[in-house]
Amino acid sequence: MKEIQLVLSRRIGKTPFEERVFEQGARMFTVYNHMPLASIFRSSQEEYEHLCEHVQIWDVSSQRQVEVAGPDALKLVELVTPRDISRCRVGQCMYAILVDEQGGIVNDPVLIKLAEDRYRLSISDSGVLLWLKGIACGRNLDVDVFMPDVCPLAIQGPKADDLMAEIVGEEIRQLKFFRYVRGRIADMDLIIARSGWSGQGGYEIYLEDSTRGLALWDAIQEVGQKYDIRAGCPNLIDRIERGLLSYGSDMTLQDNPYEIGLDRFFNLEKEAECLSVRALGRILREGIKNALVYIFVSGDELSSPRHTWDLLDRGDNPVGIVTSLAYSRKYGSNIAFAKVRAGFSAPGNILSVELGSGERRQAEVVTRDWRRVCSLAQRKRG
Amino acid sequence: MKEIQLVLSRRIGKTPFEERVFEQGARMFTVYNHMPLASIFRSSQEEYEHLCEHVQIWDVSSQRQVEVAGPDALKLVELVTPRDISRCRVGQCMYAILVDEQGGIVNDPVLIKLAEDRYRLSISDSGVLLWLKGIACGRNLDVDVFMPDVCPLAIQGPKADDLMAEIVGEEIRQLKFFRYVRGRIADMDLIIARSGWSGQGGYEIYLEDSTRGLALWDAIQEVGQKYDIRAGCPNLIDRIERGLLSYGSDMTLQDNPYEIGLDRFFNLEKEAECLSVRALGRILREGIKNALVYIFVSGDELSSPRHTWDLLDRGDNPVGIVTSLAYSRKYGSNIAFAKVRAGFSAPGNILSVELGSGERRQAEVVTRDWRRVCSLAQRKRG
Repeated sequence: MKEIQLVLSRRIGKTPFEERVFEQGARMFTVYNHMPLASIFRSSQEEYEHLCEHVQIWDVSSQRQVEVAGPDALKLVELVTPRDISRCRVGQCMYAILVDEQGGIVNDPVLIKLAEDRYRLSISDSGVLLWLKGIACGRNLDVDVFMPDVCPLAIQGPKADDLMAEIVGEEIRQLKFFRYVRGRIADMDLIIARSGWSGQGGYEIYLEDSTRGLALWDAIQEVGQKYDIRAGCPNLIDRIERGLLSYGSDMTLQDNPYEIGLDRFFNLEKEAECLSVRALGRILREGIKNALVYIFVSGDELSSPRHTWDLLDRGDNPVGIVTSLAYSRKYGSNIAFAKVRAGFSAPGNILSVELGSGERRQAEVVTRDWRRVCSLAQRKRG
Repeated sequence: MKEIQLVLSRRIGKTPFEERVFEQGARMFTVYNHMPLASIFRSSQEEYEHLCEHVQIWDVSSQRQVEVAGPDALKLVELVTPRDISRCRVGQCMYAILVDEQGGIVNDPVLIKLAEDRYRLSISDSGVLLWLKGIACGRNLDVDVFMPDVCPLAIQGPKADDLMAEIVGEEIRQLKFFRYVRGRIADMDLIIARSGWSGQGGYEIYLEDSTRGLALWDAIQEVGQKYDIRAGCPNLIDRIERGLLSYGSDMTLQDNPYEIGLDRFFNLEKEAECLSVRALGRILREGIKNALVYIFVSGDELSSPRHTWDLLDRGDNPVGIVTSLAYSRKYGSNIAFAKVRAGFSAPGNILSVELGSGERRQAEVVTRDWRRVCSLAQRKRG
């Protein structure tokens, strides 16, 4: 793949933090929800090692916010997710997969309950605003659906607690996972949640005034010097090691939550009306046809595929595709997510991967926990 | 603005033509509807000159297709656009702006009528699929809304007619603007429309089998050699000279069609039910507050802004923003689209543009036709 340059026109939104991201050396980007999102500063491996040891500051403005407010806010949110939102309290976040009336995954946002009649979705890369507006409009719901001027900034890594305690006070250490509080940084009142798209723990801070982005960044970075803070971004190696799926890569509107293994977040018995319940019930009755699995891919370090790599069975029949891949030094192997036909999803199954170049590699399906497999493999070897 | 590299993951869809686009030297890209779209091969100026004289082949797969099919297809399409679709016949295309229930512009697609119960929208960069699905789902309409495996390839420039006549037959020359026929290229049956996002005329060909993209490209390019065909892409200079607006840059969900000057495509008296009619009527009664205008910006050649450039009145009050800009040798000036408060939209108004750097330039509001203004300016000077 040749190096190609990204042009940032007005159509690609400007983030309140991007000046710092450019200054601090981000050189590779993607576009996510019509906004720039850094992919690499120096190298994924170097950034991975730093993230696992220190603390990083990430511009994740591209996790756009869709707010639902008004008398029918809960009704609309319940309609679009099979998760039971009635159990969510103010101060809480929920991973609330959105599913359409055919059982397809629309998005996998984190839902934040701001008030009984006000919810905010921190979305992955798809048109959630128009989906929710369309349903509200079609059903004549009494609700506002809009994108507020809110941009998340993530503080991730093992030193995130020390850093944030120094900035907003020691109490923040007690904040539980997927809970939020209001805190004060750089003279701004902000929502601070214990959440973030890494396996190393940390916080997401929601900036509510985009003109103050650099002030927020600088205030955190100044205190962060002693913790060796660096600008960073969601890291491919970390996210695959941790099992964090990416909407658009590992799941799309063509996939249902059973295939992707996201059904552990809901059951079909919630009381509120929900668009997807009937389709999900039917999918369950008819049987799950595909499964997202973890695989080890043998041999030298591979880079993440641009082309879709096919997975073949022993008879060379295509039985799936690789969706995300990185080389993990921790596990000494290429590790990947793949979608395979249900009959091929059992741990231990051996498949081959057809690389774009024509080369083939062996792939082994593993359980959905790299650590268990590795200790198993070590025991087998021992 | 530093050079930054674009990373193409699986989340950014692969187009059926992209191998040729890379091979033929595209070096700058944007992401449009989750797909790569070339912005520049060598330079905008060089490509502009070639486009005005010869013929180009453009991968515009990123104009994604949203298909609406079934008994309620017309009903859904009428709901989402204020344009009267009942007058559209099979074989015809229509520029059908989509407007929401608050009067905001959702998208400005070209609608293609395939059958009485089947329409296809060739969309600009926003989540039309989910918007239409949301409304259909909320209203319980009997209609399928989906993205078919269809990718447009544009053939643009003054030699497009000669080229296409040689490929599909002389009759194609008779095809009127915004009409389509079915033709045969490289053993494929294809929809061929006289349309495209340039001011130089040409065709859009709709590939219906993404595995055959390179075959289609190669068949056209082979015949195109004698017409000096080159790979190209939508050209910023050409589109501003021609007055072609870009969704996301020149209009957004926050703008209504009156402000953008797109009300010439509809009136509020169509018979079918339409979501936006009430809001549009109210906007009209309350008065139009902003206007998209053409402006000349004085001085040396400027590059298109990343930041939003403010327009100031004589008292230094902000009265608008520049939305797209290019330097036109034809008109000997920087030419731009701008959104200004209605009181400042009259031709002849002098404003200043505050460039990101702190520099200021003079801006003159002109009528919405560069040519008329230029001849006027010449007469004044003469």
